[in-house]
Amino acid sequence: MKPVSTATENEAMYRRYIDCLNDHLTSDLSDFVQEDLTYNGRPMTRLGYQNLIAADIAAIPDLHFDIQLLVVEGDRIACRILFECTPQHEFMGVQPNAKPISFAEHVFYQLCDGKIAEVWSLLDRPAIEQQLAS
Amino acid sequence: MKPVSTATENEAMYRRYIDCLNDHLTSDLSDFVQEDLTYNGRPMTRLGYQNLIAADIAAIPDLHFDIQLLVVEGDRIACRILFECTPQHEFMGVQPNAKPISFAEHVFYQLCDGKIAEVWSLLDRPAIEQQLAS
Repeated sequence: MKPVSTATENEAMYRRYIDCLNDHLTSDLSDFVQEDLTYNGRPMTRLGYQNLIAADIAAIPDLHFDIQLLVVEGDRIACRILFECTPQHEFMGVQPNAKPISFAEHVFYQLCDGKIAEVWSLLDRPAIEQQLAS
Repeated sequence: MKPVSTATENEAMYRRYIDCLNDHLTSDLSDFVQEDLTYNGRPMTRLGYQNLIAADIAAIPDLHFDIQLLVVEGDRIACRILFECTPQHEFMGVQPNAKPISFAEHVFYQLCDGKIAEVWSLLDRPAIEQQLAS
């Protein structure tokens, strides 16, 4: 029987995943993400998920994931991620204004066999719109 | 020396706190919330916090906090809360349209001595605006 991942192992996996995103290495997330997952309840392939993150990085070349709060219990992870960056292209339907912006994401993950199987994400969209409009 | 609260005790406290909110008993949250806290980084008194929740209940008489995902690690708690309700008065600057709406909150808490000392909350404001506008 395959050993169940512990919270400690899951936290280590998650921190490696975030390091990988910060290195903008999104073309193969198979060490961290299941082949099929759900994103805010919608079914998604790992490839689709990778493309989603790659598109964010294309719009924001200095995108950096800064873990501000991390809570891990068994196979569930919650993270408050802070972004301080300067979008260069349209992001979340909002045009960039060449100014740096700061916003948070609050995201929950359900793992399966030590890899991300569900993502529930909320971004502080009002903060993004407000700063890009100013 | 006062015993430090365990994750199990903290989860039990949090579930009692949510029960209390669901009973709309917001006038005394001293069993759950420190006298002074921060809310999204801003200092706030417990009284101010209670008033904030009471105002939401006044705007949404059928407000019910439905815990969808709960992650507890030591003195940190993260929760995805689902709301299915019908606002009767202005809520988050948006006028009600008498229709039921559904939206999520992703909220992190840092406890101190077993009571809430920091709150970091993101609401799915776009979902609220979209549903109230339709």
